[in-house]
Amino acid sequence: MSINFRTNKSVSGRRRLLEKELTIDLPNIGSSAIDDTIARTRNCENMVGWTQIPLGVAGPLTITSMNDERLTMNYYLPLATTEGALVASVNRGCKAITQSGGTTVDSERVGATRAPVFDVKNVTGKKKLEEYVRRNMKALQKCAQETSGHCSLRGITLHNVGPYEYLRLSFDTQDAMGMNMATIAATSIYRYIEAQTGFRCISVSGNVCADKKPSAINTILGRGFRVWADVVIPKKVLMATLKTTAQNLYEVWMSKCMTGSVVAGSMGHNAQTANIVAALFIATGQDPAHVTGASCGTTIARVEDNEDLYLSILLSDLMVGTVGGGTGLATQKEALSILGISGGNNGKNSKLFAEIVGAVVLAGELSLLSSLAEGSLAKAHVALSRGKLQSTKF
Amino acid sequence: MSINFRTNKSVSGRRRLLEKELTIDLPNIGSSAIDDTIARTRNCENMVGWTQIPLGVAGPLTITSMNDERLTMNYYLPLATTEGALVASVNRGCKAITQSGGTTVDSERVGATRAPVFDVKNVTGKKKLEEYVRRNMKALQKCAQETSGHCSLRGITLHNVGPYEYLRLSFDTQDAMGMNMATIAATSIYRYIEAQTGFRCISVSGNVCADKKPSAINTILGRGFRVWADVVIPKKVLMATLKTTAQNLYEVWMSKCMTGSVVAGSMGHNAQTANIVAALFIATGQDPAHVTGASCGTTIARVEDNEDLYLSILLSDLMVGTVGGGTGLATQKEALSILGISGGNNGKNSKLFAEIVGAVVLAGELSLLSSLAEGSLAKAHVALSRGKLQSTKF
Amino acid sequence: MSINFRTNKSVSGRRRLLEKELTIDLPNIGSSAIDDTIARTRNCENMVGWTQIPLGVAGPLTITSMNDERLTMNYYLPLATTEGALVASVNRGCKAITQSGGTTVDSERVGATRAPVFDVKNVTGKKKLEEYVRRNMKALQKCAQETSGHCSLRGITLHNVGPYEYLRLSFDTQDAMGMNMATIAATSIYRYIEAQTGFRCISVSGNVCADKKPSAINTILGRGFRVWADVVIPKKVLMATLKTTAQNLYEVWMSKCMTGSVVAGSMGHNAQTANIVAALFIATGQDPAHVTGASCGTTIARVEDNEDLYLSILLSDLMVGTVGGGTGLATQKEALSILGISGGNNGKNSKLFAEIVGAVVLAGELSLLSSLAEGSLAKAHVALSRGKLQSTKF
Amino acid sequence: MSINFRTNKSVSGRRRLLEKELTIDLPNIGSSAIDDTIARTRNCENMVGWTQIPLGVAGPLTITSMNDERLTMNYYLPLATTEGALVASVNRGCKAITQSGGTTVDSERVGATRAPVFDVKNVTGKKKLEEYVRRNMKALQKCAQETSGHCSLRGITLHNVGPYEYLRLSFDTQDAMGMNMATIAATSIYRYIEAQTGFRCISVSGNVCADKKPSAINTILGRGFRVWADVVIPKKVLMATLKTTAQNLYEVWMSKCMTGSVVAGSMGHNAQTANIVAALFIATGQDPAHVTGASCGTTIARVEDNEDLYLSILLSDLMVGTVGGGTGLATQKEALSILGISGGNNGKNSKLFAEIVGAVVLAGELSLLSSLAEGSLAKAHVALSRGKLQSTKF
Repeated sequence: MSINFRTNKSVSGRRRLLEKELTIDLPNIGSSAIDDTIARTRNCENMVGWTQIPLGVAGPLTITSMNDERLTMNYYLPLATTEGALVASVNRGCKAITQSGGTTVDSERVGATRAPVFDVKNVTGKKKLEEYVRRNMKALQKCAQETSGHCSLRGITLHNVGPYEYLRLSFDTQDAMGMNMATIAATSIYRYIEAQTGFRCISVSGNVCADKKPSAINTILGRGFRVWADVVIPKKVLMATLKTTAQNLYEVWMSKCMTGSVVAGSMGHNAQTANIVAALFIATGQDPAHVTGASCGTTIARVEDNEDLYLSILLSDLMVGTVGGGTGLATQKEALSILGISGGNNGKNSKLFAEIVGAVVLAGELSLLSSLAEGSLAKAHVALSRGKLQSTKF
Repeated sequence: MSINFRTNKSVSGRRRLLEKELTIDLPNIGSSAIDDTIARTRNCENMVGWTQIPLGVAGPLTITSMNDERLTMNYYLPLATTEGALVASVNRGCKAITQSGGTTVDSERVGATRAPVFDVKNVTGKKKLEEYVRRNMKALQKCAQETSGHCSLRGITLHNVGPYEYLRLSFDTQDAMGMNMATIAATSIYRYIEAQTGFRCISVSGNVCADKKPSAINTILGRGFRVWADVVIPKKVLMATLKTTAQNLYEVWMSKCMTGSVVAGSMGHNAQTANIVAALFIATGQDPAHVTGASCGTTIARVEDNEDLYLSILLSDLMVGTVGGGTGLATQKEALSILGISGGNNGKNSKLFAEIVGAVVLAGELSLLSSLAEGSLAKAHVALSRGKLQSTKF
Repeated sequence: MSINFRTNKSVSGRRRLLEKELTIDLPNIGSSAIDDTIARTRNCENMVGWTQIPLGVAGPLTITSMNDERLTMNYYLPLATTEGALVASVNRGCKAITQSGGTTVDSERVGATRAPVFDVKNVTGKKKLEEYVRRNMKALQKCAQETSGHCSLRGITLHNVGPYEYLRLSFDTQDAMGMNMATIAATSIYRYIEAQTGFRCISVSGNVCADKKPSAINTILGRGFRVWADVVIPKKVLMATLKTTAQNLYEVWMSKCMTGSVVAGSMGHNAQTANIVAALFIATGQDPAHVTGASCGTTIARVEDNEDLYLSILLSDLMVGTVGGGTGLATQKEALSILGISGGNNGKNSKLFAEIVGAVVLAGELSLLSSLAEGSLAKAHVALSRGKLQSTKF
Repeated sequence: MSINFRTNKSVSGRRRLLEKELTIDLPNIGSSAIDDTIARTRNCENMVGWTQIPLGVAGPLTITSMNDERLTMNYYLPLATTEGALVASVNRGCKAITQSGGTTVDSERVGATRAPVFDVKNVTGKKKLEEYVRRNMKALQKCAQETSGHCSLRGITLHNVGPYEYLRLSFDTQDAMGMNMATIAATSIYRYIEAQTGFRCISVSGNVCADKKPSAINTILGRGFRVWADVVIPKKVLMATLKTTAQNLYEVWMSKCMTGSVVAGSMGHNAQTANIVAALFIATGQDPAHVTGASCGTTIARVEDNEDLYLSILLSDLMVGTVGGGTGLATQKEALSILGISGGNNGKNSKLFAEIVGAVVLAGELSLLSSLAEGSLAKAHVALSRGKLQSTKF
């Protein structure tokens, strides 16, 4: 059994070959009305059709950015998901946050990182290569710039163990998520270093990047964007909208996100950061494998003096973009337009997107922790299991 | 600004409200021909349309399962992705594995885990609750069974720190991924324990589960399915199909998946397990936030005496299902039918799916490690950046 | 330069060779009046003298064990240390705990673990070896027993990745810490398995043990003893003895042992468990490299309704013994006699020792957290730096 | 029961009170001929005598430092231990390394770190405090200098989560290990910041330091000294001295230090770094709780083309000093004089000591890995258990 997909280069043609080979029908996969020219030439080899994911909207969510003009804006949030209750959960969090005056967010562009690994043989080689890199930053920056006008080398951290020397290169890729650009620039840089020093690069990626693996280096040094978002929820909003108290929610947070994660040996000290990021990423054409970085988020709660609740989140490894990758596809581009940040804007769009992600994650944390404190999580799932998604109260 | 979505309960009606509010057009999000009855009632609240993801196919991939009948089968693999080169990369790995006689896979059903946390006050309370649980397993199993005929309690591990007692409940949920079932059953169990012992449950989930967070407890005790897959690639296949040697690939693996991950303080010792799982999960209606568990996979390489390459992967936290969640949606159901495992089959379909996921992850690892060893990763991305996806040689 | 120590087998003779070679004097290293027969034949090769460490005493500390007879006892605690303020700090913690009615401790004997690693080649070999082990537990237990009447195999957990199969063997070694016994028994077991199955053992230790490395497997499955200790400190004791409040101490604990350790990517969620264990271990002849396991301890605080403080510790990797190793040396044996647990007692002495260690660690945590809350840590160190150790108020 | 130690301030007086209270005899604890003036006033409160540890010597070990003059020197190594076989094991490693021309070491002074935690309330406060710190480095450096002429602030890294802001201060403390100095300087700094900004410091230590807890931040950013040491062992030395081959040792290393540690979820990727550091630290008056940092060391092996073995170690969290703490005690000072580095020397002694520690750790790794590869570990322990330590062949 083996289909030769090369005999037919159209999407429908390949699909028919597959249907024939497996004697199945794939009418829905083939039912899209969207033009597939970009998708089949830039996004997906051997394309046979389209997977369709329900797209819901939560919000509005009031967000104040600490950066630049410190604007306060309201956002509707596109969430592509097959998991009933997720949109409702985020929506409830948005409502409570917006009723509380909105969330404040701050962000830091760390940059797309790529870490080639060199064979330096031994301690002596390590010293030589490290000295070379420290003295030739300008030449290496020039290598990066020559690969793309949108890519600049921000910095390098050096990491050695035994014969292996890792150069963790950090790139500013403006509004692109930038891993492809970073790989191309890193390749140019390592080849230059090879030519100049004689040290051989073993691999353009040595996992010190660290791309799509939960990693302390990303938590500590950051990757992509680092985002903080927080809010104070007044006691009355807790009662009216979230049906709980600051003390009850705090107790859930403590035993779950803190001590529970400690017991589990977990790198994620949060309630459900991965859920929210997955839905936002799929809706907006991000790389969904980067959900991994978001799963390492940290959520912090505190009871304020007047029984208000302080809640915050930190994401240290958030790789997002508003150009390139899946962002140019028809439905994904429209989802970005719901957020008002489709396309390139000198890096401002990707940064604003990172901050929006942080804010929505905060809404998700608030809602799930409330639901757990209230004891209503199972109730929602029971309703769901009976097809009563619409009437579920969130 | 605030739209009242409740005034219009149709998908198109909500979309029009959003378009009007934001003065934007969302024609593509609204372009689907698929009936939205199930989606808007079971999978997604506030639904406004569909996100469409390109679906490609890789394969065939020859897989031999160590379980039961030890059948050898060929599979075509549905991959929903917006990341150019991914399908081609997997395809190349499938080709090399299949040329080498296929991969052998083994799996273990650990079960969907959910860990309620109780307030036991102190060491004395800990002892009491732990003794209660050990003596009343049958009653607790009955609680679980009463919530669903498809859900049975397999076991409980006890974890205490300070006043917090975590009962990590493991459920067999047959062909469903099962987190909703597990949550409902865990709720029934904790309420029973509360009634019987007087100890209060703080939260039905205490992160010792651990759900969608990278966690050592999942790596060590397992979660969902634990899957192993391996293959020996003969020297000639390495040369002809993968353009590399066992020694070169091994060196990349060592400096990247082993020492690189150590330097990064990473829980993922692999090349790109998250990428492959994300594409398979989105295509087949899995919960994409579970990509997190897959990102903790471990890849092991070894050079055999005759310069063949041994390669294996281990995924310890693989949550999959063939019924429930997004698996019933039109395009996702068809993707599962490509694998021949749509719907329920006494737990056999979910187990087979887990094994297929393991096998495809192996193909992805083989292909990327080869590409890194060959030095061709950037080349592929350069081609991609020029819109030349089709002609990229993989 | 090279001394041939074999030319002189007496301790003083070797020391003189060293003094001559380096033209230095080592009068204090040679000043001990203790007989060196046991030390130079069982504890230390190439012995040239003795290192002398100041031994202080803290206490009394009131401890109630949850095990067996639930006895309440008072203990004086031998602490060998060169770090000024340590004994005083522990002493203050003991005072506060004893004033509060003492600490309650519970313990679980997990056993000394040793994990040989086998080459099983592939998934097929993995299945074979695992089935063999599951079916032959009695034979393997017999192997262990034949190596020593004090050593019995309690259980085996199986861990596979790629061609490597780890058998984490857990042994009950009664009152001995037991690593030497465990290594001997593990050797007997792996050789038996090699002979029976043909699978080759690569190393008697494959780090899944995991011996003297901070490891999640020890935290989750335990190693040696797992010990819990807790106490409620009334508000008045907090004020009078510890000069702080429950709320202030809690805030320090939260920002340090919880969120601080999360930010640091730490496996230790405590204040100073390593300090206390190091001093107790050196005084009593334990293996000081096992301090590593203790550094992974978890400390939990909570404010009780009446502003009392609940404090607890958990140590999951505590390897201790009252016979063997350094416990038979003259001063170490006397230190154990201060605790009333010198020598063997059917495993009861080692278990009681583990519980005492847990209790003293709790005292150390209480004292340091109080000191940090009060802001007096630097004050103590300033006094110390001026040689005023005696007058430091603790 | 409660002894009032304050009634008698002499060491012997306290000991007699204890003996009387417990009706035991402590003649050996009281048998030291060393003057106790310094010990009882600076190192240990409530001192009742001395713990005596056997001191052995290994070596010579040939070490070439990459720093400064790149001197090659031979060292005898003082090891205080109660664990039979340890000195012999290190000795064998030293012999093989010295026969191979010695080890090359490199080191980097990262500095003693202390991380006060401030309450910044929220994202807005975070921004304010971080901007303050960035703009006032000179003033903060002045604060540090005023506390001690031996202490200078090298740098600060900022870490925020929720309301908690951690300032990881790094100090150069010359030849002192420096934690006390660092704590005093950090106190001065935080009080200055409190006065200037109004933000309250919750605790002078917030575990981002991270002191005596295994922590990724120490592995990634370093702490104290970071040390690399490596060696190439020729095939003939492997055969003659270590009774193994590069390939066999490599296989043990791979399955133990790499894949085994991955399976164990360990932060230590080594064989026995903690053992060696514990013995060296106790002999030389270091703080033995810092063994924790050394247990996180990484060992890397590689087979060279000609079947020689490359072996290296990396310690990233090595806190050592040659003045202060226990280094001034009689026997400890003599042990440092064996290494030729007793006392202060403008930071050169502590740096050299760190390099020596790295070199000895390498010797320990080489020896144990060889022993495991040869299968002789149990044999040594069997001999030991029969009191035949002297005749054990290492």
